[in-house]
Amino acid sequence: MSPFTGSAPPTDAWHHLRLTRDDGVATVTLARPDKLNALTFGAYADLRDLLAELSRDRSVRALVLGGEGRGFCSGGDVDEIIGATLSMDTAQLLDFNRMTGQVVRAVRECPFPVIAALHGVAAGAGAVLALAADFRIAEPSTRFAFLFTRVGLSGGDMGAAYLLPRVVGLGHATRLLMLGEPVRAPEAERIGLLSELVEEGGAGARAAELARHLADGPALAYAQTKALLTAELDMPLAAAVEMDAATQALLMNGEDYAEFHAAFTEKRPPKWRGR
Amino acid sequence: MSPFTGSAPPTDAWHHLRLTRDDGVATVTLARPDKLNALTFGAYADLRDLLAELSRDRSVRALVLGGEGRGFCSGGDVDEIIGATLSMDTAQLLDFNRMTGQVVRAVRECPFPVIAALHGVAAGAGAVLALAADFRIAEPSTRFAFLFTRVGLSGGDMGAAYLLPRVVGLGHATRLLMLGEPVRAPEAERIGLLSELVEEGGAGARAAELARHLADGPALAYAQTKALLTAELDMPLAAAVEMDAATQALLMNGEDYAEFHAAFTEKRPPKWRGR
Amino acid sequence: MSPFTGSAPPTDAWHHLRLTRDDGVATVTLARPDKLNALTFGAYADLRDLLAELSRDRSVRALVLGGEGRGFCSGGDVDEIIGATLSMDTAQLLDFNRMTGQVVRAVRECPFPVIAALHGVAAGAGAVLALAADFRIAEPSTRFAFLFTRVGLSGGDMGAAYLLPRVVGLGHATRLLMLGEPVRAPEAERIGLLSELVEEGGAGARAAELARHLADGPALAYAQTKALLTAELDMPLAAAVEMDAATQALLMNGEDYAEFHAAFTEKRPPKWRGR
Repeated sequence: MSPFTGSAPPTDAWHHLRLTRDDGVATVTLARPDKLNALTFGAYADLRDLLAELSRDRSVRALVLGGEGRGFCSGGDVDEIIGATLSMDTAQLLDFNRMTGQVVRAVRECPFPVIAALHGVAAGAGAVLALAADFRIAEPSTRFAFLFTRVGLSGGDMGAAYLLPRVVGLGHATRLLMLGEPVRAPEAERIGLLSELVEEGGAGARAAELARHLADGPALAYAQTKALLTAELDMPLAAAVEMDAATQALLMNGEDYAEFHAAFTEKRPPKWRGR
Repeated sequence: MSPFTGSAPPTDAWHHLRLTRDDGVATVTLARPDKLNALTFGAYADLRDLLAELSRDRSVRALVLGGEGRGFCSGGDVDEIIGATLSMDTAQLLDFNRMTGQVVRAVRECPFPVIAALHGVAAGAGAVLALAADFRIAEPSTRFAFLFTRVGLSGGDMGAAYLLPRVVGLGHATRLLMLGEPVRAPEAERIGLLSELVEEGGAGARAAELARHLADGPALAYAQTKALLTAELDMPLAAAVEMDAATQALLMNGEDYAEFHAAFTEKRPPKWRGR
Repeated sequence: MSPFTGSAPPTDAWHHLRLTRDDGVATVTLARPDKLNALTFGAYADLRDLLAELSRDRSVRALVLGGEGRGFCSGGDVDEIIGATLSMDTAQLLDFNRMTGQVVRAVRECPFPVIAALHGVAAGAGAVLALAADFRIAEPSTRFAFLFTRVGLSGGDMGAAYLLPRVVGLGHATRLLMLGEPVRAPEAERIGLLSELVEEGGAGARAAELARHLADGPALAYAQTKALLTAELDMPLAAAVEMDAATQALLMNGEDYAEFHAAFTEKRPPKWRGR
């Protein structure tokens, strides 16, 4: 637990998602399989709050995000979200859309890598959640659909118009966000949307394996790599190089760097401490 | 017509390009086929002025840009532009180059998607016009050539050094802009420069079909998607997420979003109004 | 030689790399083949100082960077750098890491194209040096490895977390920088990390040929293309378009542009002067 913990107690039970923890690896499962894990107001709020809590809890070193049942996530629930927003006033609509954006920012800014384990549908907000993750491990059945325009909304939802061009380039991103057509696994792999394509049924296990590797490794180095990747998208070269220099100077004072050198010298594998 | 129309009358006749309009779709054709649609001062000026006029005329919801004859556009005319600029003073040279840049900005910033229908040569300024479009529908005969260095100029012309790295990545962009070598359709598709590759002779029809789809759809949602894609290339994540939230709140107050929900509930296709 | 030369004399001998010059082409060879050209403090400092000197010396119009022996560069030397940094204080660590970043900035900002001729290993700082080059000509044996996290450091070293997402997209960049796994030539080509793949043993000759082409061509146009590509990664569209306009106006007053037009009119090849 971080020394920078205030009075707010940790949440006892997450009602809108499933959380398991295992020695540095948190696994978050969207578990509403009868609705293809469609997101509700509660699910968004839990994702926002959970990522904030886990970010303060220094024991989490990697996070897997998956979906139970036939697909990863079908996006915002048509009845519980689209229907409900139709009777909201402007301030409420802003609050809702800011909350969904906060989830994406939390995924990008949390101090541990996030691995999306994907199969079946990853649509709407589900596609953006996957997009915001650091790794996308996908089964052949995976199909992304940024289908916001299909419900009359902007394709730029939850940062998608920021993130997608930086992952697949502006041309593909325009096509995907404007038209909302499904992107199946082979195309997703070809345009750079996948980190790794695995066999059907294998995404969860591979994501868990990768999370274990990351959690058992030099976790502070991974966390800083993620922080720099996120920050340097928005920085000029000169500032990025300066930020890298300060970060490496910091880590060169750390235990893992000294341990690497000792292990190398002694011809043994390093024992990473994550600091 | 926009209520924000002043005293300036619309242009009666465009002398340097061909414009047709059909129920929300504007089709602009570079029509100087004996010169491979080489651009003249008048053609640049007409593109700049036409895009400004169409942007104020709210009836346009999609635009197709194509070229008549053996190719899309061979770029600036060697005699009428290169020859003429050799006797210009510095202020005139700046004016000319600012005008060409204004065309690219207008393509990126106009409130409707622009679809380039490509075949044969798309060279120099023709390559950048295609690059600035939202969609590039290309026939197998298409060959891009960013040949500015071949006439002794910078490969960064009309925003190409900004746009191309954001479409195909910095490595490919450097090679293309520095060397000016032709990029044929298969390579263009491989590196992400094409939205869609169609059969020979089919780009115009496919572009018209896509423009019809966009014009008949939730056009305000498409327009905002384009605006966000353009703006968020230049914004940090936090600002982009906030801009998305405000945009979605706006569109959730719109007619098309309510219509989607009504149509979904009634199990019928939505009747989009574009607002 | 530039007229803007002060009192500092040029360096007589570079002790930590090999420099040859031939009519506008500088060739820099990392020449410590028994150590796979592992970099030392001296090698970084020489790269920094050499690029600064060559940038002031207007006779250099293209630079080739290669490695002698079995590979391009294995990165920072484990003993001479990692070992030594373990006993440095914070100010010294910052100085070291700023120096390595200065090398990358110098590669991106020098007024001539840099061509990396690659074979075998390009690891750690060697991978980032290659990444910072304008062209990467690679043999099939080439394997990149951004292995910083494997020594307990951040994957964002020397600007890698800035550059790599802009070359291969954020998804691939995250995977490569976070995991440090080798990227072999076919994958590197597929994701856009290579400018050109050549046959084994052929990278040096092809890089020399390309450097000769660039040095004999409109070198000022190439230099400005590079400067714009570098600068416009960090600029909004409107500013980039204005910068392009000013640059083209400048070059339209130059000798090479007039020479192109004269040669075209006289149906002969242009005689480029590089100005």
